[in-house]
Amino acid sequence: MKRREFLTAAAGATAAATAVAAPAIAQTAPEVKWRLTSGFPKSLDTIFGAAEVFSKYVSDATDGKFQIQVFAAGEIVGTFQAVDAVESGTVEMAHTASYYYVGKNPTFGAITALPFGLNPRQQNAWLYYGGGNELVNEFTAKHKIRAFPGGNTGTQMGGWFRKEIKTVEDLKGLKMRIAGLAGQIMAKLGAVPQQVAGGDIYPSLERGTIDAAEWVGPYDDEKLGFYKVAPYYYYPGWWEGGATLHFFVNMDKWAELPKSYQAVLEAAAAAANVMMQAKYDAVNPAAIQRLVANGTQLRPYSSEMMQAAYTAAQELYGEISAQNADFKKIADSLTAFRDQEYLWFQVAEYTYDSFMIRGRKK
Amino acid sequence: MKRREFLTAAAGATAAATAVAAPAIAQTAPEVKWRLTSGFPKSLDTIFGAAEVFSKYVSDATDGKFQIQVFAAGEIVGTFQAVDAVESGTVEMAHTASYYYVGKNPTFGAITALPFGLNPRQQNAWLYYGGGNELVNEFTAKHKIRAFPGGNTGTQMGGWFRKEIKTVEDLKGLKMRIAGLAGQIMAKLGAVPQQVAGGDIYPSLERGTIDAAEWVGPYDDEKLGFYKVAPYYYYPGWWEGGATLHFFVNMDKWAELPKSYQAVLEAAAAAANVMMQAKYDAVNPAAIQRLVANGTQLRPYSSEMMQAAYTAAQELYGEISAQNADFKKIADSLTAFRDQEYLWFQVAEYTYDSFMIRGRKK
Repeated sequence: MKRREFLTAAAGATAAATAVAAPAIAQTAPEVKWRLTSGFPKSLDTIFGAAEVFSKYVSDATDGKFQIQVFAAGEIVGTFQAVDAVESGTVEMAHTASYYYVGKNPTFGAITALPFGLNPRQQNAWLYYGGGNELVNEFTAKHKIRAFPGGNTGTQMGGWFRKEIKTVEDLKGLKMRIAGLAGQIMAKLGAVPQQVAGGDIYPSLERGTIDAAEWVGPYDDEKLGFYKVAPYYYYPGWWEGGATLHFFVNMDKWAELPKSYQAVLEAAAAAANVMMQAKYDAVNPAAIQRLVANGTQLRPYSSEMMQAAYTAAQELYGEISAQNADFKKIADSLTAFRDQEYLWFQVAEYTYDSFMIRGRKK
Repeated sequence: MKRREFLTAAAGATAAATAVAAPAIAQTAPEVKWRLTSGFPKSLDTIFGAAEVFSKYVSDATDGKFQIQVFAAGEIVGTFQAVDAVESGTVEMAHTASYYYVGKNPTFGAITALPFGLNPRQQNAWLYYGGGNELVNEFTAKHKIRAFPGGNTGTQMGGWFRKEIKTVEDLKGLKMRIAGLAGQIMAKLGAVPQQVAGGDIYPSLERGTIDAAEWVGPYDDEKLGFYKVAPYYYYPGWWEGGATLHFFVNMDKWAELPKSYQAVLEAAAAAANVMMQAKYDAVNPAAIQRLVANGTQLRPYSSEMMQAAYTAAQELYGEISAQNADFKKIADSLTAFRDQEYLWFQVAEYTYDSFMIRGRKK
């Protein structure tokens, strides 16, 4: 008897013997249909696509019994309403960047990426093995949300500028589309942060309503065409050294899931986490080359500007921490973890990358 | 009616209606028991632990119906027999470093990490979205193996030396425990590569039977105590810029799995992939600090040595490629992908890390 026949026969026997207990068997694999609202439009195939990768694993792993339908931002819930929608149970879950909800609580800002915080791998280390997921969930539980890391963009770029920005002085009065904690840090440096929805950035830059805008990185930014109206592309995006996206699940809905579906969801989220990063890393190199070929001027932020932003960031964290214990707990944990991480990363990781970037060209 | 009650009632009704078709239902969730042989001992909780993370997800996601028992190296199959054991079906799967099987075919060496190849994130980008998994599986199919990325150690360290090694000249005649492609490159530089099993490295270094040995990185190396007998710890391990571990599955056994179990296995492997890297990144910083506190002398490989090794590596790849089409295909793909990746990584990623390591200390 072949293995497959044996399995089928054995399974058949088991099924017959337990037919009277059928409800109990079926209960372990009920039909469940959820709705997931993404914080992103379908056109961002990297970041939006991670929710589709996740949803497909969940469906395939449960023989289609646990279906999570993915909706683009605005289809049923807008980007900035996603947390409220999960908290209230309007949708069972969301896939989004928690810093979009910094207005509700600055702690949401720190969860995606603390400016001058961890790089992408360090984010995962903190989240999975550095107590990060526990701290994040202690906070999100106050919004009836269970949070799972669900992707990373990599270190982002530092935004598009209509003019060169050589010193902190050049930031004075500059209207920049930049949100959350980064916007507050930019304000300390003299810039005027603006809230502009993704689709409105291009015309605002074109008309000069704003002078600068940050978005993500080469692949996503290229789609929005910023290089045509703001040629100076600065780096690095010190406010998002490693931006973690999250799957946010309503805690009541989570509790209703069979344990097996919980495990499927958790594994699928981790799979989406690594695969979103991999996709960004695979598509960004060609994008940045196309951007440069199309006239984009790459510029590093000056050391003086980086230092000034770093100092302003520490000041801001002190101010928020004095008033917000949740923020303080997470920012302190992230900062301590980061200092340890870079002690190690500067050894093998950094010297390997240094040689591969510079050394072998000699 | 509460949602949970509704689900249970609905599921019960479905189960009753389909009771006559019970075998078909049961067939989708048969009891399957597999054995996984790890290439590593239990004491390496990072790398061995990734197989346990994987196995737990698989079990939890299937209500315990798909059990994959994890065996340490040597319990049922030795490290170097794992590929043969999977190919023959002695075990259904293995979790190991493919370069252990470089003696069967040098292509196995390139799959874990090509010396001077990709860093850890670039490995994932190549594997998941750069055609890497397809190329790897085209090759492993010749051994009846389906391969899934299953963890990364991060950039490894460059090994422990009893004496300082300042120039390529210092490598002449030096007996170093180093395997695979890296050993062949070291041989081109004048060293004499040695095959020494993990447990025998310490006494060999202590007695001076060997002069140097490479293993993994701070956390794993510390457990083996090398710092007590070979104080010079070099970096980076240019032969493993980002070593990917793999889950190797016998293709016939894979084909026998229900589609849902295949999806569970694939998601669990991706989860283990990101979590193993996260664990290494979380535990290495404290380990390297303990090592230094215990007298370890950290030393970077000189630029001259890195250049010489890089040149020797290119020479070796040319020689192997001339005789092995599989190796050539994978090495060419990896090399082209790497050159593109570093064009991008030098921008945002590298400048962010540079500032975090050096800039903010000013």
